[in-house]
Amino acid sequence: MHRTYSMRQSRAPTASQIQNPPPPVSTTKTGRFFGKTNIGHTFRRNAAGAFGPDLAKKLSQLVKMEKNVMRSMELVSRERMEVAQQLSIWGEACDDDVSDVTDKLGVLIYEIGELEDQFVDRYDQYRVTIKSIRNIEASVQPSRDRKQKITDQIAQLKYKEPNSPKIVVLEQELVRAEAESLVAEAQLSNITREKLKAAFTYQFDALREHCEKLAIIAGYGKHLLELIDDTPVTPGETRNAYDGYEASKAIIQDCEDALTNWVQQNAAVSAKLSTRARTLSQRRRNARRDPNEGVDLSHQDQPLERESGLWIPASEHQGNGYDDEEEEEDAPSTVHTETRGREEERPIAA
Amino acid sequence: MHRTYSMRQSRAPTASQIQNPPPPVSTTKTGRFFGKTNIGHTFRRNAAGAFGPDLAKKLSQLVKMEKNVMRSMELVSRERMEVAQQLSIWGEACDDDVSDVTDKLGVLIYEIGELEDQFVDRYDQYRVTIKSIRNIEASVQPSRDRKQKITDQIAQLKYKEPNSPKIVVLEQELVRAEAESLVAEAQLSNITREKLKAAFTYQFDALREHCEKLAIIAGYGKHLLELIDDTPVTPGETRNAYDGYEASKAIIQDCEDALTNWVQQNAAVSAKLSTRARTLSQRRRNARRDPNEGVDLSHQDQPLERESGLWIPASEHQGNGYDDEEEEEDAPSTVHTETRGREEERPIAA
Repeated sequence: MHRTYSMRQSRAPTASQIQNPPPPVSTTKTGRFFGKTNIGHTFRRNAAGAFGPDLAKKLSQLVKMEKNVMRSMELVSRERMEVAQQLSIWGEACDDDVSDVTDKLGVLIYEIGELEDQFVDRYDQYRVTIKSIRNIEASVQPSRDRKQKITDQIAQLKYKEPNSPKIVVLEQELVRAEAESLVAEAQLSNITREKLKAAFTYQFDALREHCEKLAIIAGYGKHLLELIDDTPVTPGETRNAYDGYEASKAIIQDCEDALTNWVQQNAAVSAKLSTRARTLSQRRRNARRDPNEGVDLSHQDQPLERESGLWIPASEHQGNGYDDEEEEEDAPSTVHTETRGREEERPIAA
Repeated sequence: MHRTYSMRQSRAPTASQIQNPPPPVSTTKTGRFFGKTNIGHTFRRNAAGAFGPDLAKKLSQLVKMEKNVMRSMELVSRERMEVAQQLSIWGEACDDDVSDVTDKLGVLIYEIGELEDQFVDRYDQYRVTIKSIRNIEASVQPSRDRKQKITDQIAQLKYKEPNSPKIVVLEQELVRAEAESLVAEAQLSNITREKLKAAFTYQFDALREHCEKLAIIAGYGKHLLELIDDTPVTPGETRNAYDGYEASKAIIQDCEDALTNWVQQNAAVSAKLSTRARTLSQRRRNARRDPNEGVDLSHQDQPLERESGLWIPASEHQGNGYDDEEEEEDAPSTVHTETRGREEERPIAA
């Protein structure tokens, strides 16, 4: 693992990376005029966070970047299905065994493409959940701003007119604003944690299912390859007639059954913790559960009866600058319109 | 599985698809002005197969399409790493527990990105192997063409000058051409099978390793989430101090160990064949091995001593129209140059 302890530090290569030299770098990674990034994706990422409250900027950018990831995954999925079809089309003109096996390999690869497509849908659940953290962050900002504004006003008045009766009024208002802010910050703290956990649970569950299914397909794919008669023939010799149609069909059916019957409870790949990690995690869990064990705090997310009406829950908040429609705009189109005809100004992404 | 029996037929949805309604379609899949395809990729796919021998056209297109898949996978990988960094950047401003866990989640997701990048390199091994089938296909074409040409010449002469002495010469030439063609076709048959098997063995082995490793990461990711203190706090209440630094580090180390120690022999996901499929496959294997068992045919791929010199092995063939340099050209650039300024003519991919 490249950065074992933190994303915020870099790290020397591991012993295993030195021991096992990787395969040569893919030939597809070279020779591109416009750099490696999708220009539309770069635009979307950079535009995100340029608007909206400060507090939510970083997360806005993350949400946009996740959208880029999903668009790219979708492209992979679609192109995978096309490849599957082309493989089958090519094989059709070959001998019977190659024809049948490539057709069935096409079925498996098409299935990979479909699973990738489904994974994108499930990944979106993750992204939408992260988005809800962004929304609460955005909605907490006005509450912070208001507290700061009143504090500033009081300081200014005390300097200019130390005996002004408005100071008392403002101080009362500040107490209310602070109370409101306390609630807002507690909600931010609670919702961030709850949603963060939920979001990554979605992502990791989806990833695990997706990966195990792909590994199953890879296994059955290898069984299919066994049906190809790769005994070399001499010139003029004819191969034995192919009789594997039933076998290839049975393999595909087995694969289908394995995929259909996959449930999370029977996941094959385990992630066992070492004794040390388990002990440490356990200690952490106990430490954090003890103090409040058994206390029902579910009422605390109800909005208090307040006078100001300034702060409202994220779900009801309309004015945080993140309408869902904004999500649907297509960045590439803007880029195309904007940069056509002034090629020399177009930034080349490295 | 959508197409259970063949890519060349379509099929009704399975019972499981009807039983388990899928999640809603991802919101990222809508609202694009230029359709869903990457225009550069469309160009590359369509241009492939427009040149070169007929026989190799379909496979040329497949090779180009695989390149599209790889470019897209590479994009996913790069964007995944960016997402990992952004997640860590966002978390840094949050409370200690969220900060530490998001940083460590970032490490895991960055690792996914790196594995995806490595997978692209290994996928290229598959693509290059498929390319070698395309090369032998392209090199067999002249041999077929020549045989056809001589046959045509003889037929023409027999019609025009039935007693021409050239007929005998041509008939001798045809015998030689047929012998050469027999060798070429046998080589095509042998190499296609050998390379097809090798190519998909590369792909499926790489896919299995990649997927199992991702599933491992997903598992450890879920352990990390346990460290987030999601007990709700009431307004004004402070959370217990975070003491999970050691635990999160230990989880990452466990994950690193699991990834480092992964070997194909211990693959967790199995693809067991049903008794029926196993019997059928076994029968097929026996049927095809029996006749030639124990006969050494390794000499048969040596070129025969020939007079014509027309047909040469694929590896030595230069004139088949597929220089490796051609692979490196960047299709999108052409598209940009070609279509700038005549927007109305640009085809919108559906």
